[in-house]
Amino acid sequence: MGEFDLIARYFTRPARRNPLGVGDDCALLQPAPGMQLAVSTDLLVEGRHFLPTVDPRSLGHKSLAVNLSDLAACAAQPLAFTLALALPRVDEAWLAAFSEGLFALADAHDCELVGGDTTAGPLTIGITVFGEVPAGQALLRSGARAGDALWVSGTLGDARLALEALRGTIALPPDVLAVARDRLDRPTPRVELGLALRGIASSAIDISDGLLGDVAHVLERSGVGAIVDAECAPQLLAALRTGLQLPIERVQECVFAGGDDYELAFTAAPGRTAEVLAAAQQARGPVTRIGTITAEPGLRVRDAQGRTLAQEFAGFDHFRA
Amino acid sequence: MGEFDLIARYFTRPARRNPLGVGDDCALLQPAPGMQLAVSTDLLVEGRHFLPTVDPRSLGHKSLAVNLSDLAACAAQPLAFTLALALPRVDEAWLAAFSEGLFALADAHDCELVGGDTTAGPLTIGITVFGEVPAGQALLRSGARAGDALWVSGTLGDARLALEALRGTIALPPDVLAVARDRLDRPTPRVELGLALRGIASSAIDISDGLLGDVAHVLERSGVGAIVDAECAPQLLAALRTGLQLPIERVQECVFAGGDDYELAFTAAPGRTAEVLAAAQQARGPVTRIGTITAEPGLRVRDAQGRTLAQEFAGFDHFRA
Repeated sequence: MGEFDLIARYFTRPARRNPLGVGDDCALLQPAPGMQLAVSTDLLVEGRHFLPTVDPRSLGHKSLAVNLSDLAACAAQPLAFTLALALPRVDEAWLAAFSEGLFALADAHDCELVGGDTTAGPLTIGITVFGEVPAGQALLRSGARAGDALWVSGTLGDARLALEALRGTIALPPDVLAVARDRLDRPTPRVELGLALRGIASSAIDISDGLLGDVAHVLERSGVGAIVDAECAPQLLAALRTGLQLPIERVQECVFAGGDDYELAFTAAPGRTAEVLAAAQQARGPVTRIGTITAEPGLRVRDAQGRTLAQEFAGFDHFRA
Repeated sequence: MGEFDLIARYFTRPARRNPLGVGDDCALLQPAPGMQLAVSTDLLVEGRHFLPTVDPRSLGHKSLAVNLSDLAACAAQPLAFTLALALPRVDEAWLAAFSEGLFALADAHDCELVGGDTTAGPLTIGITVFGEVPAGQALLRSGARAGDALWVSGTLGDARLALEALRGTIALPPDVLAVARDRLDRPTPRVELGLALRGIASSAIDISDGLLGDVAHVLERSGVGAIVDAECAPQLLAALRTGLQLPIERVQECVFAGGDDYELAFTAAPGRTAEVLAAAQQARGPVTRIGTITAEPGLRVRDAQGRTLAQEFAGFDHFRA
């Protein structure tokens, strides 16, 4: 099978929402009047972002999910995406499963594949995603203000727990591993929550490199600091709800610096708590208040007695890990 | 140097044309009212699209040039691009030269870097480029009509000649190699010509995989055929102007199936010849008429006596080459 047959068989579907899709030199998009186009791009490399043993259907899902998560953090409605794919060989069973996982998530968000590029090379997946947001309503990293509450969606740290189990640094019962691994392999982008938080949240970011590392980006861009409550960690790690026992330091490491969560961290003025909770209910996903934005710069994790934890929780850095 | 320092030092410049650039979860673009957004993406992999010995400044240029060439083929005005970069290691000299070559071409087209992703991995460059075109005015592959003239811009085949010389399958005098290698390493995207051909050309494509293979895409999408004049080959290969002697079969192979040219192939009704030539003059680049679109499907190369050449000129296919 050649390059053009491969594209025709696995990656070409007629454009419905957009003026021109796969098959020309460019795709054409037309944002509605008054809308801005939100754009984000992610590159996934085998051995860095996923294991060679990953199920290709899950990989198709995750490749798009991590990009939709960026749209969610900007409160943008998904519109379209492009796919750049380097493949070591043409493996039709792999392509069928990968494209199935990819399109299942794309269809769930009415997000069309409009173009791409396919080449031979080490397995690499590059997706650029496009969403619409009314001009001026995108949630930015720069909007956090002293006194705002700091929130996160869903649960955190389970993807890291699965990764540690796959690496053999921790042993998990099979049922716990299955739940944790689903979080690692098939993250849920919080698109509905992002949309529901338009006009309510003051800032947002998606958690990909670890909660505290990503929150630090918000603090830096907003020129503020934050206090995070250490006690929130156990309630955020879903695996603990199965009765799993873990040292608290390990729980904190997973929740605060785990990475690969694809939940949203966001801030909102304290008077908007009821609206935040209503938005979460509308988006059918729980949110948890985990701290407070401060005028004083820096990020401190405090225990119930108000003592700052000495432990450092470094975010993931592709050139330091 | 970590990932965030690397991005800050080499790839972050303030957004001027676009509402939001590098540094948030998404970039924000705002096409002017009545404009469609043209989008194209290309993935360049070391060893497939460029040799490990390539000058990083040229590589920065070429990575963006191949994408701008897709905008040119759609008659879109460049607006912005994203960069996804997998690097085996942090090499500051390489990054400085690569980003310099990249931004020099970007600045020449007022095309802003608005976002991206950086990770460790085998050297891979993924660019997605955005341009603006008035709704309905994009040049598509599907617009060629029987009787139209078939044109190409610039010169063809010299990049292939350089590649063959670098591979050692042909010997070139140093001055010829230098000219040919410049065509391979630093292609010129025909953005101005594409813009000048709005409303004049009936279809267009950029020549990346080889003239005849790319023209075949236009024929297929337009439901037409074409006759290409074999005699045009020698005048299109710039290296021959230096006095270089080459067998005619080799000349035809380079011109008709060379690849990596990043010139435009386009069609226009026969009555629009004067307008085509005026557009080429305005864009300060020569164009050559190389054939005619036919109602009968198929692509035939004919000599001066009207005989169809038996030789096959296959376009480049990443999974067959």
